[in-house]
Amino acid sequence: MDAATSDTAWLQAMLDVESALARAGAAVGLIPPDAADQIASACRAQLVDIGDVAHGWAAEATPVIALVDRIRLLVEDERVARYVHLAATSQDVLDTATALVARNAFDAAAADLVGVIALLAQLARAHRDTPQVGRTLLQQGVVTTFGAGCAARLTAVNEAWGALRLWLRDRLAAQLGGAVGTLAPAGDRGVDLAREFARELGLNEPVTPWHTTRGRVAELAAAIGVLCGELAGVAQDVVLLSATEIGEVHVAAPGGSSAMPHKQNPASAVLALACAHRVPGLVSTVLAGMPQELQRSAGRWQAEWATLNELLRLLAGVARHTRASVEGLDVDVDRMRAHVDQLLAGATLDVGSAPVFVDRALARFPMSEGPTP
Amino acid sequence: MDAATSDTAWLQAMLDVESALARAGAAVGLIPPDAADQIASACRAQLVDIGDVAHGWAAEATPVIALVDRIRLLVEDERVARYVHLAATSQDVLDTATALVARNAFDAAAADLVGVIALLAQLARAHRDTPQVGRTLLQQGVVTTFGAGCAARLTAVNEAWGALRLWLRDRLAAQLGGAVGTLAPAGDRGVDLAREFARELGLNEPVTPWHTTRGRVAELAAAIGVLCGELAGVAQDVVLLSATEIGEVHVAAPGGSSAMPHKQNPASAVLALACAHRVPGLVSTVLAGMPQELQRSAGRWQAEWATLNELLRLLAGVARHTRASVEGLDVDVDRMRAHVDQLLAGATLDVGSAPVFVDRALARFPMSEGPTP
Amino acid sequence: MDAATSDTAWLQAMLDVESALARAGAAVGLIPPDAADQIASACRAQLVDIGDVAHGWAAEATPVIALVDRIRLLVEDERVARYVHLAATSQDVLDTATALVARNAFDAAAADLVGVIALLAQLARAHRDTPQVGRTLLQQGVVTTFGAGCAARLTAVNEAWGALRLWLRDRLAAQLGGAVGTLAPAGDRGVDLAREFARELGLNEPVTPWHTTRGRVAELAAAIGVLCGELAGVAQDVVLLSATEIGEVHVAAPGGSSAMPHKQNPASAVLALACAHRVPGLVSTVLAGMPQELQRSAGRWQAEWATLNELLRLLAGVARHTRASVEGLDVDVDRMRAHVDQLLAGATLDVGSAPVFVDRALARFPMSEGPTP
Amino acid sequence: MDAATSDTAWLQAMLDVESALARAGAAVGLIPPDAADQIASACRAQLVDIGDVAHGWAAEATPVIALVDRIRLLVEDERVARYVHLAATSQDVLDTATALVARNAFDAAAADLVGVIALLAQLARAHRDTPQVGRTLLQQGVVTTFGAGCAARLTAVNEAWGALRLWLRDRLAAQLGGAVGTLAPAGDRGVDLAREFARELGLNEPVTPWHTTRGRVAELAAAIGVLCGELAGVAQDVVLLSATEIGEVHVAAPGGSSAMPHKQNPASAVLALACAHRVPGLVSTVLAGMPQELQRSAGRWQAEWATLNELLRLLAGVARHTRASVEGLDVDVDRMRAHVDQLLAGATLDVGSAPVFVDRALARFPMSEGPTP
Repeated sequence: MDAATSDTAWLQAMLDVESALARAGAAVGLIPPDAADQIASACRAQLVDIGDVAHGWAAEATPVIALVDRIRLLVEDERVARYVHLAATSQDVLDTATALVARNAFDAAAADLVGVIALLAQLARAHRDTPQVGRTLLQQGVVTTFGAGCAARLTAVNEAWGALRLWLRDRLAAQLGGAVGTLAPAGDRGVDLAREFARELGLNEPVTPWHTTRGRVAELAAAIGVLCGELAGVAQDVVLLSATEIGEVHVAAPGGSSAMPHKQNPASAVLALACAHRVPGLVSTVLAGMPQELQRSAGRWQAEWATLNELLRLLAGVARHTRASVEGLDVDVDRMRAHVDQLLAGATLDVGSAPVFVDRALARFPMSEGPTP
Repeated sequence: MDAATSDTAWLQAMLDVESALARAGAAVGLIPPDAADQIASACRAQLVDIGDVAHGWAAEATPVIALVDRIRLLVEDERVARYVHLAATSQDVLDTATALVARNAFDAAAADLVGVIALLAQLARAHRDTPQVGRTLLQQGVVTTFGAGCAARLTAVNEAWGALRLWLRDRLAAQLGGAVGTLAPAGDRGVDLAREFARELGLNEPVTPWHTTRGRVAELAAAIGVLCGELAGVAQDVVLLSATEIGEVHVAAPGGSSAMPHKQNPASAVLALACAHRVPGLVSTVLAGMPQELQRSAGRWQAEWATLNELLRLLAGVARHTRASVEGLDVDVDRMRAHVDQLLAGATLDVGSAPVFVDRALARFPMSEGPTP
Repeated sequence: MDAATSDTAWLQAMLDVESALARAGAAVGLIPPDAADQIASACRAQLVDIGDVAHGWAAEATPVIALVDRIRLLVEDERVARYVHLAATSQDVLDTATALVARNAFDAAAADLVGVIALLAQLARAHRDTPQVGRTLLQQGVVTTFGAGCAARLTAVNEAWGALRLWLRDRLAAQLGGAVGTLAPAGDRGVDLAREFARELGLNEPVTPWHTTRGRVAELAAAIGVLCGELAGVAQDVVLLSATEIGEVHVAAPGGSSAMPHKQNPASAVLALACAHRVPGLVSTVLAGMPQELQRSAGRWQAEWATLNELLRLLAGVARHTRASVEGLDVDVDRMRAHVDQLLAGATLDVGSAPVFVDRALARFPMSEGPTP
Repeated sequence: MDAATSDTAWLQAMLDVESALARAGAAVGLIPPDAADQIASACRAQLVDIGDVAHGWAAEATPVIALVDRIRLLVEDERVARYVHLAATSQDVLDTATALVARNAFDAAAADLVGVIALLAQLARAHRDTPQVGRTLLQQGVVTTFGAGCAARLTAVNEAWGALRLWLRDRLAAQLGGAVGTLAPAGDRGVDLAREFARELGLNEPVTPWHTTRGRVAELAAAIGVLCGELAGVAQDVVLLSATEIGEVHVAAPGGSSAMPHKQNPASAVLALACAHRVPGLVSTVLAGMPQELQRSAGRWQAEWATLNELLRLLAGVARHTRASVEGLDVDVDRMRAHVDQLLAGATLDVGSAPVFVDRALARFPMSEGPTP
C-alpha cells in the first residue's frame, strides 16, 4: 500500500495520464501516431526529478506545469513537444491521476479485505451455535451465539466493501475538460478525445467535465469512511472481548508494554481503531470542499489529493490491522459458556434465531467463492 | 419538511413501528388478530403525551419504555397488553422509526429537488450557446457557455439525488432483532416475523439485525452530504456571478440590508450555503459513531437520531434555498458578452465542445420526464 | 438551559442589544435621552411576533430587518424611530446577541459543572487510598487507587472549565461596526459609541470590529469542545467500570430496558457520551467557517448561530448527565479489592505516588471554596 | 518545518525524553550519575535504526519498546541498562516527545508568522486612509479604507498567535506517570522525579499525570485551528480582491497555468487556503479522541500523534503561503478609487472611524517591537 500511494506512485500516475492522452490524441487523429509513441516513452517516473515537480506545486499551486515542461524536454523534438498535454489542463491530469492511484491502492488493500471477510466467515460458521452472553451498553443482557455477532460484522464489512467496489466499477472516472471544460483546442474532436482517453485508462467517461462538481470524490471518501467504520466495529469487539475481566477472546500476536512485561495487549485491534479514528474528520474535509466555484476552485480542490491519499493509506491500515486482530483469534469457548451459565443461573438456554442469522449471512456471502458485492 | 421531522413526526413513526410489529405478529401467528387490531388503534400520536416520552428518554436513555407503557395502558386489556412490543427492543423501534422519518422527509423535500433540477435544465437549454468567460481561481480564463456550467451542475445534482433515491430503494431497512439480536421471544418464527414486519412498512429486510453495524446510517448521512454539496455548488456560483463587479446574474428576490437600503443581496443563495456549511461536520459525527460495540453501543448509537434529523432538515433547507436562488434568475446575457469581448480583445470566439456537453447532460436527464437515477 | 437557548431567548437578546445601543447612543450624545428610553421600552420579546422575525430570516438571510421594523412601529414617534438601530448593521446585533445568549447559557450550566467538580473531589478524597487495578488498553496492568483516577478527571474538568471562564471574562465581546466596519453614521463618535455599547452590556470591547475575523467564535466553540471531552472522560469511566464483568461502580439511578427487565443500564453516563459525541463535528463546522470574506461573509457567518446554539445545549446536556452519573455513585470497594488481590497473587501492594497526586489535585482545586480557574 | 516534524525529529525527541529521564533520575538520586551520562550519550538518532522503531510501532502499537531495547543495547553495561526508561511507560515518552516536537515546529514557523504580521501592519499603516469599497455578501456596500481591512486581519492573526504562545508557555507539559500513573517504581521519589524531568526539558509540570485526560492536546489542536483560520482570512481576501473583475490587488509572484499562459493566478493565497481547509477536520479528530478510557486508551490515544504532526505541518504551510501572498502585494490604489467613485456617484466620501480602528490596531500591536500576545 505504501508503494501504491507514494510520491512516486503519484508521479507515475500523472505520467500515465499524459501518456494516455497522447495515445487518445493519436486514436482520434489529433496527433501523429509516432509523436504519441515518443511522448509515451518519455512518461516514466525515473526520467523525472520528483523534486522539480514538488517545487512547481509550491510555486504554481499545480505540479503539472513543471511536469509538462520536463516531458517536452524529454521528447526533444519540438514538433512532438507541442502535442504534449494536448487540450488538457492541470486539473485533468491530477483528477485522472487520483483515479489511477485510488484503483491501485484498492488493489493493494484487497488481500487484507478478503482476508478479514474470510476470517469472519470462518468464525461465524465455526461458532454458529457457541453460546455467548449478549452485552448491551456493556451490561450482560441475554444469550446469543458468538457466531451471530461475527455474522453481523461479516455482513456489514461485505456490504461496505461491495459498495466500494460498485463505486469503483461505475463511478471511477477520467477527467478531461481542458482549461474551462470546453476542450476547445481539440476542435470538434473534444468529446471523442475524452471518450478515447477514458477508454485508454479503463476509467468511466463522465457526462460532462466535473472540475467543480466533486460528488464523485466525496462519494469515494464516504465509501472509505463507511468501510473503515465497519472494520473498526470488528476491532472494537476484539478489544472489548479480550478485556481481562471478559477474556473471551485473545489475539494471536499480542503486543507488549514497555512498563509491564506481563501485559498481553490486543495491539493489532488497537491500531485498527487508531487508524479508523482518523477517517471521519478527513471525510468531512472532502465534503466541506465540495462547493467549488465556477470553472476551478481556489483552494478547495487543491486540498483534495493529500486528503484522499491519507484516506487510502488509512483504509489499508485499518484493513491490515483488523485482519491481524482476527487471524488466529483464540476463542475461549469455555469461558463464554461459563459467563452464559452464570447469567442463566439454571434457566433454559435459548439463542433464538441467532444460528439462522448466521446461515443467512453465510448464504449471502459464501466465502468459498470469495466475496461478492 | 418541518412537519416531517418534528417531535410529533418521530412519535408517530415510533407508534407506526409498534403497530406494524403487532400486525406482523398477527400475520405469523404470534398474536391474535384482534389483539393486533387493538394495539394498532392505540398507536396514534394524539393519545400519547410527548412530554412523558421525552422524560423517559432523559431518564432511561431510551424513549421506548415510556412509550410501550403508554400503549399498554391504552389497550387496557391485559391479555392484549402483553403482545405490545412483541420480541422487540428499544433500538428496533427507534432504528425503524428513523427509516420512516427519513422516507417522509425525502418525500417532503422532493418538490424542491425536482424544482432545482428542472430549473438547471431550463438554464442549460436556454443558454447552451450563450458565451461566458470561464473563471478559474477567480481569474478570467477562456470562453465557455453559461449553459455548460449549468449542465455540469445539473448532472451533478441529478447524480447525487439519483444515488440517494437508489439508497432509499435498496438500503432503507427495517430493524428487528430483539434484546441482543436473536429474536428469542419469537421462538422459531423470528425470521418470519422480521420479514413480515419489513413488508408491513415497505422497508427492506436486512440479512441480519444491524444493531451495531451502522453502515446503513452512515451511507444515508454521506449521501445527504454529497447532495447538499452539489446543491451548494449551484448557490456558490449564484453568489459569485452576482457579485457587483461580475454582475452576470441577479436573483429574483434579493434580500435587503438593515444598514444599506440599496443592497440587493443574493439572500437565498447565501442561506443555501449556510445550511450546506453545517452538513459535513454532522456527517463526520455519524461516521465517527460507527464502531459500535458488541450488541448495543453505550453512547454512539444514542447520538445518531438527533444528528440524522438535523441532516434531513438541512437538506430540506439547502434544497429550498437553492431552488429559490435559481428560480426566476435574471441572466444578463449582454454583460456576459461584454466580459467575453473584453477578454477576447478581437480574437475569435471559440466555445469548443461546451454546447455538446450541454446536449449530453440534457439527453441523460430529460426534464420532461422528470429526473431519473 | 433550554430557556437560555430558546428562540425567545435569542429574540430577547437581540432586543437587549438594540436597547443597549440606544442607551449608548444617548450616553455619547447621538440620541436624545428620552428617545433612548422609548426605544428601550419597546425592546421586549412579548411585543414582537417571533414568527415575523423568523420569516425575515428566511427571506433576507437576516432576522434584524424585520426586528428593526417592528421596534420602529412600536415606538410610534417617527422622530424616535429613526434612532432605532443607530449606526448598526444586522451582524452587530446578531454577534452581540450571541455573546449574551452564551453568557446566560453558561450561567445556566454552572450548577451542574460545579456539581460534577464537587462530586469528583469527594470521590478523590474518599478513595485516595482505595486500591484499584489500573487498566491500560482494557487489560489489567498494575495497581493504582480509585481516588487517583478521580483526581486526574477532577483536574482535567477544572482546567477546562477554568479556561472557558477565562475566555468569558477576557474574550466575550460586543460587536459594533456598522455596515462595513466604519461606524460612519456615528460621525466622530464611532469609537466612543462602541465603547459605551460594550460597557452597557458588560462585554469586552474589541480592538476593531470583527465581522469577518471569527477567532473569538472559534475559540468559544473549541473551549466547549474541550470541556465536553473532559466530562465525557468521566462518563466513559463510569460506563466501563460498571460493565457487568468489572462491576466496580454502579450509577445511582440506572435506566431500564424495554426488552430485558433485569438490566441496570448506566443511562446517565450513556447520555453524557451521546451528547459529547455530537460536539467535535460542530466545532469543526465553526472552524471551517472561519475564513470569512472581505466585510461580511456570504454563507459562513450565517451558519454560526445555530451551530453555537447547539454547542451550548450539548454542553448543558453533557454537564447534567455527567453529574447524574457520578451523583450517588455506588463504589464497590470490596470488588475493587478482590480484583487487586487476584492481580497481585500474593505480591506486595504498591500504589506508588497515587495518593500524592490526589493530594496535589485537591490542593489545587479545593472544593470548599468552590472551583477556581 | 519539514525537518522539525520529520520521522527523524520524532525519533530524536523520544531519545531526548529518555535522556532527560535518566538525568532527572540522577538528580533525584535514583540513578548513579555516570549511568545517566552513559544513557544520555546513547540517545542519538543516528545510533538508532528508524525502521526497527517503526516496525515496533506496527507490531506492538508503541514504538517505545523497540527504542528502549536499542538504547539498552547501546549502553552495553547491564548495570546501566536497567536504568534506561526508569519508572516510565511508553505513553510518557511519546506524550513528552510530542511536546518537544510541537515546540520545535512553532520555532520553525515563527519567522513566517512574524512576517505575515509585519506585512499586515505595513499595509494597514500605508493604507490607513486609502478609500476602498466595502463588500458584504460580495455586494458593494459603502466605503471603508483598505487599511481598516488589513487592521482587522492584523488584530485577528496577532490575537490567535498570542493565544498559541500563551498556551506554549503555560500548558505545554511533560508527561511522566509510569504504567498506570502511580510512578510506583520510583518509590517515594515519584513526584520529585516528575518535577525534575519537566525541568530538564523546560516543560510545564502537570498537577497529575494526564494519560487519559487530553484537554491539553485538544487545546493545542484548536489553537492551531484558530490561527490557521485567521491566516486563511487574509488569503481569502487576497484571492477575492485579485479576481479579474475586482483587480484591486495582485500577488507578487503569480502562478501560471498549464493550459492558459496568460493566467496570473494568486497561487500562494490558493495554497494557503488549501492547507487551511484541511485543518478543521483534523481538529475534530483530536476532540473526538478525548474521552479516553481508564488508565490508557485503546485506539484514541494512538490516533493523536499523526494527527497533531499533520496539524503542525499544515500550520507551517498556511503561514508560509499566506506570507508569500502578502509579501510584495501590489495594491492598485487607483482602481480602488475608481470603484469608490463609481459607487459614490458624486456623493461625499465618508470612511467614518476606519482610520481610527487602524490606529488602535497598530497601537496594540506595534510592529517595531515585534508582535506581542
